[in-house]
Amino acid sequence: MKVFIVFAHPELKSFNGSFLKRTVEHLEKKGHEVRVSDLYREQFKSVVDEKDFLNFKEGDRLKVAFQSFLATTEGKLTEDVNKAQENMKWADLVIYQFPLWWYTMPAILKGWFERVFTCGFAYGVGVHDETHYGDRFGEGVMAGKKAILAITAGGYPSHYNARGINGPIDDLLFPITHNILFYPGFTVLPSHITYKTDKAGDKEFEESLNSFLNTLDNIDTVEPIPFRKQNFGDYEFPSMTLKEGLEQQNEAGFSIHIKK
Amino acid sequence: MKVFIVFAHPELKSFNGSFLKRTVEHLEKKGHEVRVSDLYREQFKSVVDEKDFLNFKEGDRLKVAFQSFLATTEGKLTEDVNKAQENMKWADLVIYQFPLWWYTMPAILKGWFERVFTCGFAYGVGVHDETHYGDRFGEGVMAGKKAILAITAGGYPSHYNARGINGPIDDLLFPITHNILFYPGFTVLPSHITYKTDKAGDKEFEESLNSFLNTLDNIDTVEPIPFRKQNFGDYEFPSMTLKEGLEQQNEAGFSIHIKK
Repeated sequence: MKVFIVFAHPELKSFNGSFLKRTVEHLEKKGHEVRVSDLYREQFKSVVDEKDFLNFKEGDRLKVAFQSFLATTEGKLTEDVNKAQENMKWADLVIYQFPLWWYTMPAILKGWFERVFTCGFAYGVGVHDETHYGDRFGEGVMAGKKAILAITAGGYPSHYNARGINGPIDDLLFPITHNILFYPGFTVLPSHITYKTDKAGDKEFEESLNSFLNTLDNIDTVEPIPFRKQNFGDYEFPSMTLKEGLEQQNEAGFSIHIKK
Repeated sequence: MKVFIVFAHPELKSFNGSFLKRTVEHLEKKGHEVRVSDLYREQFKSVVDEKDFLNFKEGDRLKVAFQSFLATTEGKLTEDVNKAQENMKWADLVIYQFPLWWYTMPAILKGWFERVFTCGFAYGVGVHDETHYGDRFGEGVMAGKKAILAITAGGYPSHYNARGINGPIDDLLFPITHNILFYPGFTVLPSHITYKTDKAGDKEFEESLNSFLNTLDNIDTVEPIPFRKQNFGDYEFPSMTLKEGLEQQNEAGFSIHIKK
């Protein structure tokens, strides 16, 4: 398969750096094609501004979504964004690898999504009216492709469990897995999480790595997160709310958007 | 009072830009002191790397939290970060104003938190052992200060309600309000949210602005989000999980960390 890895860590001599290196070696040894975008080494521009849209007219008012759509449809995006979009279209599987900083992805990766997931490419696709509000949440440019997060966290697992003070890890990641990846149609696999990375020794590293490589080796058998698709009967239009009675009794929050 | 506004939008000729200008004018007219950090105009560096730590030794392995702690305690942070921390310490109220991009804050603001909320300042404070895991979630450098988000969203309110496909807005913001702002001790006020900003005319702008200014004028009467403090009896140690029975029946997710 074709694997695109987007890597967001400032230090290659780190748990994350070693994890990336070994993952690439393993995949290539298994005969897969691998492309890596190492955002820190590439000094990937992480802030959206008018320079991202080569057809922006100086002095105009910058409306980001509107200008993003014009640049996407007129072929006026920048070279780094074009390349990232091509890698996304090329891949069968996209791995986003990063440390949890303040409980979510690093700014450099957030900026990557803001710049690469342009309007007309990842959002703003399809009819938007009273009966259909875009090809999104289960449909879109990434339909048929898989995505997975491979992340590290400083805290203990219990801090992230159903009663943990940080909030449940699945809820912390929902804005990424559901609202960014499922949005343009990715089939999203359960995230690979390593806790207490700062205190991880060789044993913990190998355990976490082997578990991840095992997932990759058996990727076709991994059950994705069963997010509900927007346009296949589960939601009311135009309110875009889940139809009454579909959730489990007393279920609330992000969880209702996942089929049980 | 002393108000520090952190503003993260690329365009001043926008809803957000006008909202900022009018908010500053109003506060100053009422006799408050106001400082603004306009991250885009300042070209605020939004990516954490070794250049943030003036005592980093070239060739060393960069461990971000460790190096952040050393730079904080040895006075070796960069000038822009020192200034931001001074503004935070100076303020009685901090307003974070930004558009929701991919359902959370823009990368430039996320990077601001990564660089300004350093170890030894906003986290990594207090004893960390089996019986006490830091002065955090309700205690810390921001204790006694208030914070509020003033945000704009492109979507309709129903998309963000309890059954909305985006997820409930309070849950989408919890990683910011609870995990970033409450963490170092801020008293966090309910967020001010303007929906359908792209379609807002003068009427909608004035309504939203006046509602926000009214909140600011009556800030001492606004009930904060009643997040549970970590070190005052609600959590088990060292698991950092909420004690059984404190939540409401069938309550789950982020919500259990808020007192009802």
